[in-house]
Amino acid sequence: MRMYDIIKKKRDGGELTTAEINYFIGGVTDGSIPDYQISALCMAIYFRGMTDRETCDLTFAVRDSGEKVDFSAVHGIRVDKHSTGGVGDKTSLVVAPIVASYGIKVAKMSGRGLGHTGGTVDKLEAIDGFRTTLSDAEFIEQVNRIGLAIVGQSKQFAPADKKLYALRDVTATVDSMPLIAASIMGKKLAADDDCIVLDVKTGSGSFMKTVDESRELARIMVDIGKNAGKKMVALITNMDRPLGYAIGNSLEVIEAVETLRGKGPDDLTGVCITLAAHMLSLAGKGTPDECEALARKAIVDGSALNKLIETVKAQGGDPKLIEHTEGFAKAKYSHAFKSRVSGYIRRADAEAYGLASLALGAGRNKVEDAIDYSAGIVLKKKTGDYVHEGEDIAVLYSNSQSSFEAAEERLLSATEISDAAPEKEPLIYDIIK
Amino acid sequence: MRMYDIIKKKRDGGELTTAEINYFIGGVTDGSIPDYQISALCMAIYFRGMTDRETCDLTFAVRDSGEKVDFSAVHGIRVDKHSTGGVGDKTSLVVAPIVASYGIKVAKMSGRGLGHTGGTVDKLEAIDGFRTTLSDAEFIEQVNRIGLAIVGQSKQFAPADKKLYALRDVTATVDSMPLIAASIMGKKLAADDDCIVLDVKTGSGSFMKTVDESRELARIMVDIGKNAGKKMVALITNMDRPLGYAIGNSLEVIEAVETLRGKGPDDLTGVCITLAAHMLSLAGKGTPDECEALARKAIVDGSALNKLIETVKAQGGDPKLIEHTEGFAKAKYSHAFKSRVSGYIRRADAEAYGLASLALGAGRNKVEDAIDYSAGIVLKKKTGDYVHEGEDIAVLYSNSQSSFEAAEERLLSATEISDAAPEKEPLIYDIIK
Repeated sequence: MRMYDIIKKKRDGGELTTAEINYFIGGVTDGSIPDYQISALCMAIYFRGMTDRETCDLTFAVRDSGEKVDFSAVHGIRVDKHSTGGVGDKTSLVVAPIVASYGIKVAKMSGRGLGHTGGTVDKLEAIDGFRTTLSDAEFIEQVNRIGLAIVGQSKQFAPADKKLYALRDVTATVDSMPLIAASIMGKKLAADDDCIVLDVKTGSGSFMKTVDESRELARIMVDIGKNAGKKMVALITNMDRPLGYAIGNSLEVIEAVETLRGKGPDDLTGVCITLAAHMLSLAGKGTPDECEALARKAIVDGSALNKLIETVKAQGGDPKLIEHTEGFAKAKYSHAFKSRVSGYIRRADAEAYGLASLALGAGRNKVEDAIDYSAGIVLKKKTGDYVHEGEDIAVLYSNSQSSFEAAEERLLSATEISDAAPEKEPLIYDIIK
Repeated sequence: MRMYDIIKKKRDGGELTTAEINYFIGGVTDGSIPDYQISALCMAIYFRGMTDRETCDLTFAVRDSGEKVDFSAVHGIRVDKHSTGGVGDKTSLVVAPIVASYGIKVAKMSGRGLGHTGGTVDKLEAIDGFRTTLSDAEFIEQVNRIGLAIVGQSKQFAPADKKLYALRDVTATVDSMPLIAASIMGKKLAADDDCIVLDVKTGSGSFMKTVDESRELARIMVDIGKNAGKKMVALITNMDRPLGYAIGNSLEVIEAVETLRGKGPDDLTGVCITLAAHMLSLAGKGTPDECEALARKAIVDGSALNKLIETVKAQGGDPKLIEHTEGFAKAKYSHAFKSRVSGYIRRADAEAYGLASLALGAGRNKVEDAIDYSAGIVLKKKTGDYVHEGEDIAVLYSNSQSSFEAAEERLLSATEISDAAPEKEPLIYDIIK
């Protein structure tokens, strides 16, 4: 088999065989296929696409390219949720405890964030003492004992994806539906959960800019998961504006805790309840409607918050910070982003808010960058709200005062204010089963 | 400027600016743009194409990427002919002496062949003592003195093309009209002749498989040349079958000499006369019809053959070999490829004949391979001829007896014989001015 022939076949619109796709990913993984052939094939795939069968094969090859955790010692059904990534997305910190509070196992392995803000493990590391590195034995023991553990990916998970993504990122071949699907699902399937709920974010702050694209991506990923024997649901959720009001690591932990107390923002609470309901439902706890009631109950009776506290304690974190979130370290400086005019906020572009918090220190530009856990943004007004001239739209937090100017500039150009109230957008566009 | 943005722009169907194309070729030349970005852009160009303006800019950037010979000391008009490459194509050895015999300057710098058979300089090196490496001063002096010199490309001519072609060759991005045009014309314009006649070969033994593709390539290249201030003509000629009867280095020199003696095969003679006529006409010697008479006259009166002998002598070659071609070293072994049936030859695929002679030792698989000058094939029958069962279709020559089996197998599968005579195909399909 020759990589040249594989590139030419795809270039000419052919369907690659399973053997050809395995040869390709094998060569990506062991380094035997040079980068220039990989990028040429990615560009050919960009133009020609892939059939569902090819995408599925590509996903499985990516999944099998690296190490795996042996979960056979875990008792019970394992469920996870995966978000395609958005701004202010702290849903994992809310839904995992809700689901685990019903005895469903959540063995979460999360990547670190690159871009806007940190990933789930970065957010948890904002809690003093929280260990995101556990041995396989510790990880599995904790999952069996309390139902929930959240660790960073220490294994060589799906290394083919890492290599492929790095190349796609510099050759303008990221925006390809089959390549996106194989990247997300290849990593997700490597964790080998029984049920997976996908949260496909749609809008300016995400990969997929339109609902139709998101539906197509969701359909492909749900099919792949089912082909791998998983129970699957995908939600298409709104990411034109940040989810909730807080962006930034400790700020998001605080908002997640508020949500578990039943005092969270409507949008964040709504998405979390729906996600948790579908996770519980896939795990056999009833219909989605019945499970929605269960999810709300876990918040009302405090069992979900207790599960989070139990998890923080188990992983060495200071539970007092969850019980009294005012104990989190504060950023040295704050700066109010005020409205120049009066009117309705028609647009508050999520991507711009993400980039602004990155500028404030909440995220990473490069893998080795340190995160400022206290940096970020707390919105005071969101899309659809009325704001008076001089009123705060958001408050910016940072330990570097000089970062405010660039951050505010981003927000200013991403905020549209007008006399007419915008139409209300749905929070959840669709559910793909 | 970022290469990523250039790839993305072309991927999305945009037209690259002159500055973007210069940035790209500059980075190819100095090695600052990584191979994986170059191949991604080539694949995007494969799918999106280029406007005539982009192709022209790309050609000029390739032309200007390397060293040049300063021809300002050459007196008179310089004319050259360039073939896109075919099997049994020894036209340069015939047309250059014809044109030079009329006082037109032919300062030919040829590449070495890779593939089927050698290039023009390889063929000349079949002549004992012939030096294809001259200093710039020697080269120019000889052109001024006798009107004709043929050397190998010793300079770093259009190095961007060398790099690009090597990458295209392994990433399935060779078959792109703008990339082919820029590659051919970038190198050709680096030699800075005043008039260029292009011989665009069409058919199985060439890049372009259809006449329409060849017409389009010819039109693009003629336009580029005119934009560079050159006088241009392109001929679209038949390469479904080998040109002439001889394939292989010394075998082709012998056939070229026969043609200069007026005893060459009809097809080879016809193409050579037309090419030479257009070269003379561009150089101001009259209309193409008038110049065709001049070209024939140079053969009849022996002045063209004398010019070849003079050139061989000037470059240290043994002129006796031209005067008495039976002096060329013969291959140790020969093998007759006989017809298994009686009938008309309907197809004798040029590419297969090329690959068969490569197997016999006449060409190179890799740049460092040595050429067997005496190896090759002499056809006894060509497409349209009637052949009896057991009669020779061709005779194969090689110094390696073991190569005959593979070569004959190729010829066998590429030869179609049937009861009905095939339609006669034109030798010259079109002339693009």
